[in-house]
Order: sequence, then C-alpha cells, then structure tokens
Amino acid sequence: MVENNHAVDESGEFQRSRSHFADRITADGSSGWPVEPGRYRLIVSRACPWAHRMLIVRKLLGLEDVISLGVADPIQDELSWRFTLDPGDIDPVLKIAYLGDAYRAREPEYDGGVSVPAIVDIPSGKLVTNDYLQMTLDLSTQWTAYHREGAPDLYPEGMRDEIDAVIEPIFKEFNNGVYRAGFATSQEKYEAAYRDVFGRLDALEERLSTRRFLMGDAITEADIRLFTTLVRFDAVYHGHFKCNRNKLTEMPVLWAYARDLYQTPGFGETVDFDHIKRHYYVVHSDINPTGIVPVGPDASGWSTPHGRESLTN
Amino acid sequence: MVENNHAVDESGEFQRSRSHFADRITADGSSGWPVEPGRYRLIVSRACPWAHRMLIVRKLLGLEDVISLGVADPIQDELSWRFTLDPGDIDPVLKIAYLGDAYRAREPEYDGGVSVPAIVDIPSGKLVTNDYLQMTLDLSTQWTAYHREGAPDLYPEGMRDEIDAVIEPIFKEFNNGVYRAGFATSQEKYEAAYRDVFGRLDALEERLSTRRFLMGDAITEADIRLFTTLVRFDAVYHGHFKCNRNKLTEMPVLWAYARDLYQTPGFGETVDFDHIKRHYYVVHSDINPTGIVPVGPDASGWSTPHGRESLTN
Repeated sequence: MVENNHAVDESGEFQRSRSHFADRITADGSSGWPVEPGRYRLIVSRACPWAHRMLIVRKLLGLEDVISLGVADPIQDELSWRFTLDPGDIDPVLKIAYLGDAYRAREPEYDGGVSVPAIVDIPSGKLVTNDYLQMTLDLSTQWTAYHREGAPDLYPEGMRDEIDAVIEPIFKEFNNGVYRAGFATSQEKYEAAYRDVFGRLDALEERLSTRRFLMGDAITEADIRLFTTLVRFDAVYHGHFKCNRNKLTEMPVLWAYARDLYQTPGFGETVDFDHIKRHYYVVHSDINPTGIVPVGPDASGWSTPHGRESLTN
Repeated sequence: MVENNHAVDESGEFQRSRSHFADRITADGSSGWPVEPGRYRLIVSRACPWAHRMLIVRKLLGLEDVISLGVADPIQDELSWRFTLDPGDIDPVLKIAYLGDAYRAREPEYDGGVSVPAIVDIPSGKLVTNDYLQMTLDLSTQWTAYHREGAPDLYPEGMRDEIDAVIEPIFKEFNNGVYRAGFATSQEKYEAAYRDVFGRLDALEERLSTRRFLMGDAITEADIRLFTTLVRFDAVYHGHFKCNRNKLTEMPVLWAYARDLYQTPGFGETVDFDHIKRHYYVVHSDINPTGIVPVGPDASGWSTPHGRESLTN
C-alpha cells in the first residue's frame, strides 16, 4: 500500500492510484518473466491488507521456499518503505535499504509512489510488479508446478466469473471503502463511504449465514480478499477510519466467519497486530497527529470457537 | 468543561485546571448568594459530562422552574462557549453572546478559561460559580426547600463519607482518566491512563454485579457522576480518546447498569449524542484535524431491557 502519500481530490474523496508496474510472471515465460523457483523476492509490509493477501496465498499454496520474503518496517519514512527491521537496515537478499531502490533499478527516472506488495527479480534487482490485484491470482494460476501437494485451488477455472463478481463490490465498498471513509476530508464523502462499508457488511452478514465461505464449502481468493480487511477492522478501521457503526465482534456471522479463517493454517500466523496498529496510527499524521498508538482492542477473542463447521455440506 | 484549551505538561500528561470561581449558593445566604427561585441561571453544554451532571440533578430534584437553563453551542469559537443556538445568538435571559461575558461581569480583568457548568446571577449578570464538583452537591443540600415532592436524596447525610470514597477513584481513573488518555501527547502517559480507565471499569463491573446502583438500592450522586462518562464512552472516549480495550456494550454488568440509568426519568432525555459527538470531534482539532464527525456508534441499544430490577432488595 502507498497511502502515506494518499491523494484526496477537491471534493474530499480519496482516490486510490493504479499500480504503475503491472508485468506478470507467467508459467510459459511469454511475459519475459518466467516462473522460476528462487528467482523472485516478495516484499510486503505486515501492516498492509493488500500485501497480507500475498502472505496468505503464498502460504496456502506452499510457495515459501519458491518465492522468498522481505518484510518492510511498518513505519515508512519520507523515502517510503524501508528495510530497517533487517540487520544493517538492508534487505539481506536484495542488498537495498529502500524498496524504492528496486523501483529505480527498473525505471531510473521513476519518482511516483512506492507500494507493497511488490515482486523483485533478484538477479537484476529490478521491480517486476506492484500490481496487487493481479499478483495473488498469478500465484494461483501461474505457479501451479510448484504448489505443495494438496494445495487448495483458490481461483478455480469454472468459478472465476462468479468470484470476480463477488469480490468487485467487496473491493469498492469495503476493502477500499474503509480507506475512503478514513481519508475523506469532507463530511459528505465520509458519510457516503461509511454507508458503503456497512451496507456491504450487512450484505455479507446475510450471505455468510448460509455459506461457510464466500463461494461455498471451500476457501477461495474471495475469502482471502475479505479477510485481510476484516482482521484489521476493529484494530484500525473502526476507530482510526471512523467506521464505527459497530465492531466486527458485534456482527455474529461475520465475526464467526473471520475467526474460522483466522484459525485456519495460513491465516492467523500471518496477522501482526503490532505492525498493523503502528503503521496506521503513526504514519497517518494528518488523521492522528499525536502518533499515539491505541493499546486496544483486546484481541483474545480471535482464538475462541467459531462453530462454523456445521455449515459445510 | 474547558478542554478546548487543555493544558498538557512537559511529560505529555493532561492537567485539569481547578475552578477559578468557587462561590456557593447557600440556604442560609451566608455566602452572599442566597438560595432564591428565579434568581440564577444555569449555563451548560449538552456535550460536557460535568455540565450533564447538573442537568440530571436539577431534573431529578424538580428544580427546572427554580433555576433556569441556558444551553451553549457545542462548538466553541476562539472566545469559548457562545449562545449561537439562541435567536440572535444571544442568551435570551442574560442578554449576552458569550458565557465569558458573565465571567468578566464578575471580574473585569479575567482572562482565564471559560468552563461549563456555570451559574450566573441574573440581576447582576455576574458569574457565581464554575465549580462543577461543588455545584451538584449544593443543589442536593442547599435547595431542599424547593425540591419536588418525593425528590430523591442524592447525597444522604449518613452516607457522604462513603459516597465521597467511591467517587474519588472514579473521578481520577475514569471521569478524568479518559481525558488523560485522550489528551496525552506521550505514549507512556496515554498507556498509564488507559490502564487506569479499564482498571476502574473492571472494578466497577465487579461492584455493580451485586448492587443495582453504586451505593445499593437507590440512585445517588455517585451514579450520576459515573453515568455521564459512561454514556459518552462508546460515542467519543472509545475512538476519539483511544480508550478502546472494549466498548461499554462489551461489559455486560456496566452496560446493563448504564441502560438502567438511561431509562430512568431524568437521565436519558438529558443525553444529546449529536452535541456530544460534534463537540469532541470538531473542537479537538489537535486530535481530529479533519473535523469529520463519526456517524456511529449505533445507539439503539440504549433502550433495550436491562434486567437489573431483580438486584433491588
């Protein structure tokens, strides 16, 4: 994500910028970037919901030994994402201090935003892609030769249209809706975003009352995209972004659904509430000028029984 | 309250200033300000928890026709509390535009903070007192000749030491604790205040599990002092002041206790969530620079059954 330099238009509405580098890594190599174990490095922030999707998909598909992982400091500085969590403040594989160095290795004159998730070609040090929407799908569809045995099919061929139709309003109204609420500088734009967020959550509460997962009995890409926003909801979007009609914990179906995913291997262990809270509350100084990071909410509920097994046919 | 120009010391800790004018209105007139129906005007903001105590006590004791009421705009300007809700932006009885005018009628050189609640002597236009801690007690103890028939004894003579002992830690750790959390400019001071707030709430959750009200079967001053902070908790302190371990609605005993009071005549009808939210979110521009006022939380739960009647002996 790149919202430390987020753009708010004249009407007070947040506008998310499109990914600048949208190359794909393909199984047949036709894109110029062939699938190849050990060649690419995934850079994430554990704070970022878009990057978090990659962490989960990579883990569910068993690609940890195939695509290596670098984790940026949750607090960007004026040069954006940096490797200050690593010894010597340098990514140990790419040997760079800032993710932006890989952007400029690719395009020397580049001076746009620097976002995570990003995939970097290790031999050349060049950024391959920061297209967070395509990236997870390509792990599922292009890297199949390296999936672990028994890996789930997160984007099954016969269901793609249906999945796309489900995730589109979730993106507009929820994944990005919380940002539109939080970054709005006009009361009107904020309220419109707030209505979108809770309208979508109400619809999902209904949909998930009869389905264990969004598309039925199996976890798909759609669930991962919903989860990474849900898991941040009470910790940051509820207070910091003013999405406060209610907490996730007050919506019984969605809260049980989110716990079900959280307790599924690949989900819970990729959640870092410390990184999440520090990023949002420290970096967005125009929303939280004191930089104080809330101690709450109590996260102990995430490990309580969810009772959703009975919804599986 | 006066916290639009709140003082934070060098360590980052909020320091509440003492009331500057602490005269008392007494039954025997020995203070120079005798109890007299129609003579005094109470000025409040419906946003302010300290002023809210006066609204409740005045109502419970049936003093509405004895002490008149002026309501300030919840949004102060640089000259503080003002009467912009009244026709012509002038208090119709005192004929002043700002509460500060009554302070200066009393002390022409006064240039300190202007706070509510305040009591003004209508004939002279002079401020009598802004001592919010004494003011409610004097309604109970000095104005007895004008209490309605059947008015409760909110500060019974035999229980005063006990009441004082109960309200003291509630004041330090909760009533004022939420402000110390919200106004802290250091992480350490914030976290200390946060621990105080929830430590006190946990103790109250325990105490109120066996008592319908703080002192037993009857409502006293102690309940009123606790209520006006509880009723603001989810609306402003939880998000805006980062007291977010949990919402009031997540503490079953306190939430039922707060609803019990809310549904008691004199309490619920004095609550104005619009004034409360607009005041905190608009006035504290150093905490919420955008001035966006949250739409939530959903307040419909306040009128649901509380089930506390069975605790009364």
